Amino acid sequence: MLASWNEGPARSAIEDYLGRIDDVPPADRIAVVDNDGTLWCEKPEYAQLLFLLAEAAKQPDIAAALGAAKEHGLAAVGAVLMKVHAGITVDEFTAIATRWFAEARHPRFGVPFDALAYVPMLELLELLRAHEFRVFIVSGGGVEFVRAVSERMYGVTPDDVVGSAVQTTFERRDGRVVLVREAKLLGSPNEGPPKVVNIQAHIGARPIVAIGNSAGDREMLEYAHTGDRPSLCVVIDHDDAEREYAYAGEAATNPDAEPISATAAAQGWTTVSMRDDWSRIFAG
Amino acid sequence: MLASWNEGPARSAIEDYLGRIDDVPPADRIAVVDNDGTLWCEKPEYAQLLFLLAEAAKQPDIAAALGAAKEHGLAAVGAVLMKVHAGITVDEFTAIATRWFAEARHPRFGVPFDALAYVPMLELLELLRAHEFRVFIVSGGGVEFVRAVSERMYGVTPDDVVGSAVQTTFERRDGRVVLVREAKLLGSPNEGPPKVVNIQAHIGARPIVAIGNSAGDREMLEYAHTGDRPSLCVVIDHDDAEREYAYAGEAATNPDAEPISATAAAQGWTTVSMRDDWSRIFAG
Repeated sequence: MLASWNEGPARSAIEDYLGRIDDVPPADRIAVVDNDGTLWCEKPEYAQLLFLLAEAAKQPDIAAALGAAKEHGLAAVGAVLMKVHAGITVDEFTAIATRWFAEARHPRFGVPFDALAYVPMLELLELLRAHEFRVFIVSGGGVEFVRAVSERMYGVTPDDVVGSAVQTTFERRDGRVVLVREAKLLGSPNEGPPKVVNIQAHIGARPIVAIGNSAGDREMLEYAHTGDRPSLCVVIDHDDAEREYAYAGEAATNPDAEPISATAAAQGWTTVSMRDDWSRIFAG
Repeated sequence: MLASWNEGPARSAIEDYLGRIDDVPPADRIAVVDNDGTLWCEKPEYAQLLFLLAEAAKQPDIAAALGAAKEHGLAAVGAVLMKVHAGITVDEFTAIATRWFAEARHPRFGVPFDALAYVPMLELLELLRAHEFRVFIVSGGGVEFVRAVSERMYGVTPDDVVGSAVQTTFERRDGRVVLVREAKLLGSPNEGPPKVVNIQAHIGARPIVAIGNSAGDREMLEYAHTGDRPSLCVVIDHDDAEREYAYAGEAATNPDAEPISATAAAQGWTTVSMRDDWSRIFAG
């Protein structure tokens, strides 16, 4: 099933692991997988940021506020971007995101963003499912943005996506119960320790497979690693500037965090070189 | 499959509905079901309250605080009960709850609490699954307490349980990542409008089947009822003092809410009479 994986230590580590879990009951076969930079391309910018900027440009008030906020740094920009979809229902948000995915094109590859899943990762998800794993996405991205594509891109239903979320409010509009998005985050961004907190809140069990690519995935991988069951922790290394991008995976919310490559080496986790371990990256 | 359901309007409404959803894709076949009083017995007290009181009695400091709090009303008692399992890990909590379920007996029926599922409801869950529904529990009870029994009682895995939750904190203890329970609720109790908010947060889709028994389920049923798809909203009426209990389903957190029986009548929802519609209630 790992047709796009070259022979090598990463592929062997995965196959060896799956040969060592006969004693793990299917109920405990839980895999958590980061999204940006792990399942799909996150460069030159997060797709969600490009989406928000495109939508902000359509709203004159917000576009003006964004211009002013840029002089005051990232936090100010973030606060304005939170307003882009405030006041609309969650269903309206999904419709807007779905339209953006249909229309927008990646600046370098020229294809829709949902065509930029990593084929070797899709193969790995299938292999995990063939071994009775349930696969959850645990993303720093907005949960409703990821849900808009998770089923058709990855075969992950909306209930199996955990992400950052905005607060929503119960309302009755035109005789219909709806949920309205607020301009406020619900709790913390889903990165670092909150990934572990949210895994428990949503999944209610410790994963045994965890896959990520940035320092923001460290605690999630450590959570799987320090359980009682045999675990598999995988870090995707973006070292292929020719076919994708070459960069270190920094945590979006904590630039001082230890590089994930250093953690992976110290913990003995499996590092995947996109350049060496993958014979193919995208479907296109 | 509804072997414990008598012929009558409730059973007919369920069977008719399942015959009318051929056009609904399986991805949209989502059922949300309350727990206390809907799937199992909630009288003479919520099982979780009896559990907390039993555990509080084992801790002298908390038992003393509880005695003092009783003079100051329910809120004061609740604040003390939040402390019973503060400072322990989520895994330790599950072990304690599991032990309680093994040892405790229902004061009237003399059996373990997890033997008090309503057999007709288990049959209904099976029937829904046979029609490709995914069944989620959406409970006002503590999510980890319900998860301790949801799989073996109802076939619902921990990730498909939505409930009230306490805050947890990421920690490393003895080289192991753990989540520690705090004495604070995470957001609001999962009753009334928060049930709808949490359905979106956890499931990410509007249900088409919703089942409850109290005014705290009203908004959840209304959410299913006001979607675009054909919906089935069911209210369990506790009118069988002989075989179970007879009482109106009040909302735990809002005693002024409209009685659910009145809402059900006004909305045309299906009311299940435990006395008339069920030939059997418990397995024992």
